[in-house]
Amino acid sequence: MGNFHETLGINELKNKNAIWKALLAEFLANVLLNFFGCASCTHISGKPPSLVLIALTFGLVIFILAQTIEHVSGGHINPAVTAGMMATGNIGIVKGILYIIVQCLGALAGSAVLKALTPEDLHKSGLGNTQLAPGFSPIQGFGVEFFLGFVLILVICGVCDPNKPQAKPAATLAIGMAVAVGHLATVDFTGSSMNPARSFGSALIANNWTDHWVYWAGPILGGVAAALLYKHALAAPNLGPMR
Amino acid sequence: MGNFHETLGINELKNKNAIWKALLAEFLANVLLNFFGCASCTHISGKPPSLVLIALTFGLVIFILAQTIEHVSGGHINPAVTAGMMATGNIGIVKGILYIIVQCLGALAGSAVLKALTPEDLHKSGLGNTQLAPGFSPIQGFGVEFFLGFVLILVICGVCDPNKPQAKPAATLAIGMAVAVGHLATVDFTGSSMNPARSFGSALIANNWTDHWVYWAGPILGGVAAALLYKHALAAPNLGPMR
Amino acid sequence: MGNFHETLGINELKNKNAIWKALLAEFLANVLLNFFGCASCTHISGKPPSLVLIALTFGLVIFILAQTIEHVSGGHINPAVTAGMMATGNIGIVKGILYIIVQCLGALAGSAVLKALTPEDLHKSGLGNTQLAPGFSPIQGFGVEFFLGFVLILVICGVCDPNKPQAKPAATLAIGMAVAVGHLATVDFTGSSMNPARSFGSALIANNWTDHWVYWAGPILGGVAAALLYKHALAAPNLGPMR
Amino acid sequence: MGNFHETLGINELKNKNAIWKALLAEFLANVLLNFFGCASCTHISGKPPSLVLIALTFGLVIFILAQTIEHVSGGHINPAVTAGMMATGNIGIVKGILYIIVQCLGALAGSAVLKALTPEDLHKSGLGNTQLAPGFSPIQGFGVEFFLGFVLILVICGVCDPNKPQAKPAATLAIGMAVAVGHLATVDFTGSSMNPARSFGSALIANNWTDHWVYWAGPILGGVAAALLYKHALAAPNLGPMR
Ligand SMILES: [Ca+2]
Ligand SMILES: [Ca+2]
Ligand SMILES: [Ca+2]
Ligand SMILES: [Ca+2]
Repeated sequence: MGNFHETLGINELKNKNAIWKALLAEFLANVLLNFFGCASCTHISGKPPSLVLIALTFGLVIFILAQTIEHVSGGHINPAVTAGMMATGNIGIVKGILYIIVQCLGALAGSAVLKALTPEDLHKSGLGNTQLAPGFSPIQGFGVEFFLGFVLILVICGVCDPNKPQAKPAATLAIGMAVAVGHLATVDFTGSSMNPARSFGSALIANNWTDHWVYWAGPILGGVAAALLYKHALAAPNLGPMR
Repeated sequence: MGNFHETLGINELKNKNAIWKALLAEFLANVLLNFFGCASCTHISGKPPSLVLIALTFGLVIFILAQTIEHVSGGHINPAVTAGMMATGNIGIVKGILYIIVQCLGALAGSAVLKALTPEDLHKSGLGNTQLAPGFSPIQGFGVEFFLGFVLILVICGVCDPNKPQAKPAATLAIGMAVAVGHLATVDFTGSSMNPARSFGSALIANNWTDHWVYWAGPILGGVAAALLYKHALAAPNLGPMR
Repeated sequence: MGNFHETLGINELKNKNAIWKALLAEFLANVLLNFFGCASCTHISGKPPSLVLIALTFGLVIFILAQTIEHVSGGHINPAVTAGMMATGNIGIVKGILYIIVQCLGALAGSAVLKALTPEDLHKSGLGNTQLAPGFSPIQGFGVEFFLGFVLILVICGVCDPNKPQAKPAATLAIGMAVAVGHLATVDFTGSSMNPARSFGSALIANNWTDHWVYWAGPILGGVAAALLYKHALAAPNLGPMR
Repeated sequence: MGNFHETLGINELKNKNAIWKALLAEFLANVLLNFFGCASCTHISGKPPSLVLIALTFGLVIFILAQTIEHVSGGHINPAVTAGMMATGNIGIVKGILYIIVQCLGALAGSAVLKALTPEDLHKSGLGNTQLAPGFSPIQGFGVEFFLGFVLILVICGVCDPNKPQAKPAATLAIGMAVAVGHLATVDFTGSSMNPARSFGSALIANNWTDHWVYWAGPILGGVAAALLYKHALAAPNLGPMR
C-alpha cells in the first residue's frame, strides 16, 4: 500500500491547514489571472487592443502572482503546470487533481466577475475566449498549444531546479516572460491559451466550446513532455545535502 | 493607555528626524508619480497615446520610486497601500494619516508642475484625470478599482513578507508590474487609478470630481481586504529569530 | 601535442554524457528561438506586426532560454556567441563547431515546425526571413549586423564575468534585453538577425539567400571583436581563488 | 594643498591603467547609446516609430550598458550623472571633466556611425536630434529636462547607496527603467534627452543647435539637485565597517 499511497500523494493531504491554504492560493490566483487577462482582451471601443498589451498583461500577471503565492502552493496557476509536476512526481495525484479543480473554478469566477463589472456591449468580443484563427486546423492549433505548454514548463523546470540556486532571483520573472513570449508570438494563431483552466473559464462564460479540446490536450501534453525531458536529460547535477 | 497609544502609533513619531524624512520621501515620490504618470497620458497631438505606453509609465515609475525610497518610508506612495498597512498593524494610525496627507499633497504638486510645464492646448485632455468609461456604472467602476487595489496590496504583502527573503531581489519590480498589469487591463475602463492620491491630484488640477468617491473607496477597501486576507491565510511561516 | 589538443578542446569532449546534453540543449533552444521568434514576425492578417512585438519576443525568448539551459551548455543559442567564446578560449574549437552545427539544425527545425503549424497563406511574408531594407547596401547591412553582434557579446562578457558575481542575478535578463535593444533599433534596417543560425534556418525554409553572408560575417566578426576587447581591456580584476 | 588636490581628485588619476580603461568604457558606452538609441528614432518609412519603441530602446540600452561596464567606470554614460557625482564628491573634478569629454566624443561617434550605416533619405528625420515640441517655451523645456535629470539621478543614488545592499540585484535595471519612464512620459515634449552628451552628438551630426542649452542646463541642474537632496536627506544610515 505504501507505494500506491505515495503515488496518489495521500500523505501530502494530512496537513489539512496547508492543503486548504494551497487550494485557496491557486483559486485566488486563477480568479485574478482571468479577471485581468481577459480584461486586457476586452476594450471599450469593442475592437481588440494591441497584441503587445495582451501579451504583457498575461505575462506580467503570472510573474506577480507566482512571486506572491509561490511559498503557499508552488504557484502553478495552470493545470498544464500541475500535470507536468504530477508526471515527474513533484506533486501527488490526488493533490494535483484538487489543484486542477480549484484552478478551473477560480478561472470561471474571474471571468464571471469581469462580465459582471463591464457593460453588456463589451461582452460581444467574447471576454477573452480563446479561438483558433481562420485557416488553422485543429491539429495545427493543437501543435501550437503543445509548443506553448512545452516552453512554459521547460522554463519552470529550468528556473526552479533545486540544484540551480543561482536561477532563483529571476525565476518567477522568467516564468512570467515565458507566458509573454507565447502570447506575443501566437496570440493571433490560437489565442495562446497555454492554460486549460484559463480557457475553460472564458469558454463557459462565453458559452463557446469550439475546438475546446485543443486547449486541454495541447498545453498538458506539451507540459508533460517538457517536464520529463528536463528531468531525464537536462536537470542540474545534485548539489549535495549540505547546500 | 499603552494599547491605545500603540494603535495610534504615537511611539513611531518620537524619532522626529526619521518621520520627517519619511514624509519627505512619500511627498517627493508622489510628485514624480503624478508628473511622469500624467505626462504619459498627455500627448502633443492632443490624442491619448497608446495604452501600453501609459501602463508601462505608471508601472515602471512605481518600480523605480519604490526601489529608491523603500528604506526611508517603506515606499507606500499610495493611500491604499498605507490603509492596508494600517489594517494589519504595520503602521500606526497617526503616522498612516500623515502619510496619506503628504501623498495627496505630493500628487497635487506633481499635477500642478505638469500643468505649468506644458502649453495650454495640452490641458484639454484632462492631464491624466481618471474617469469612468461610457457605459460603466459607478458600482462597476468601484468593483474594478476594488480589484485593482486588491491585486496591488496582495502582491506587496506577498513579496515584502519578512519570512520570504527569497522574494526580495525582485520585490519592487513585482510591485511596479502589479501597477502595470492593472493599467494594461483596465485603464480603458476606469483609468485604473489604483491610488486615491494620484486621482485626487489630477481631479483638483482638472477641477473634475465626477464619481471621485470610486477612486477612494475602491482601492482602499480592496487593499484592506487583501492585506487582511494575506495576513490571516497566506503569510509565510515564521523563519524564527535567528534568521 | 598538449597545446594543440587544448586549442581544439579535445579534452572537453571526453565527458560524452555532458557533451550530448549540451548539444541537445543548444539544439532545443534554437528550435524554440526560431519557432517563437519567427511566429512573432508572422501575423494572421499577412501584415507584419508591430516592431515592439517582434523585439520583445526575440529579447524575452533569449532571456528565458538562457536562464533555463545556462547550466547545461552555457546558453549560447547563437554561433556569434560561440565564435566569441572560441576567440577568447572559453570553449574549444571542436566543441564550438559542434555547437554551431546543432544551433543551425535547431533553427532549421524551428522554422520548419512553424511552417507546418501555420496555414499556407501566412507563409508569403517570409516566415521571419531576414532581409536588408530597401536603400541599404550590403556593406551598410554588414556594419549594422557587426554592431549587433558587438553589443550582444560585449554584454554577455560583462554580465558573465566570473569576477563580477554581483552581476549574476540580472545576467540573463541583460543578455535578453541586449537582443531586444538590437531588434527595437534596427529590425527595420536588416531584420536585426544578430544570430547566423536564426537567419540560416529562416533562409533555408524561405529559400531566399540574398545577402545571406551579411548575417554570418556581421554578428560573428562583431562578436569576436567584442569578446577580445572585453577580455583585454575591460575584464574585472581577479577576485582570487578563495571566492 | 591636500584638500585642493582632493577636490580636484588628482589622486584618482594616479592609476593610469584604471583611468584609461574607465575613459574607454564611458566612450564605448556612449557610442552604443547614440547608435542604438538614435537608430530607434530613425525608421525606414521616414515616419517616426512608436514612442514605446523609442522609450524601451533608450531604457534597455542603459540597463545593459550599465550592467556591463559598471565595474570599470561606474557606468555614468551621461554628463548629468557625472555632474551629480561631482557635486556629492563621489568623483573628483578632473576625472569628472575627462568623463564628460569622452562621453560627448562617444555620443558623437555613435551618431556619426549611424549616419554612415543608413541610406541618405533616412537622415531627414534628424537622426534622433532632440527638439522642443511646438508650443513648448525654452523655459518649459528646461523644466521638463530638469525633472528628467532629477528622477534619473535620484534613482541612481537610491539604488547604488552603499548602505542598501538589498537594492543591488535590480539596481541597473531600475536605472535603465528610469530612462524608459522619462522617455515614455516626455519624449513627445522635449525628446526626453536626460543626457547632454546624447543630445550633443545628435545635434552636431544634424547641425541643429536650436535651444541646445536646455539639454545641458536641465539634466545637469536636475541631477545635481537630486544628488544633493539624496545625500543630505534620504541616504540610508551607515551599515558600519564590518559589513
Ligand atoms: Ca481593457
Ligand atoms: Ca507625453
Ligand atoms: Ca504571430
Ligand atoms: Ca530603426
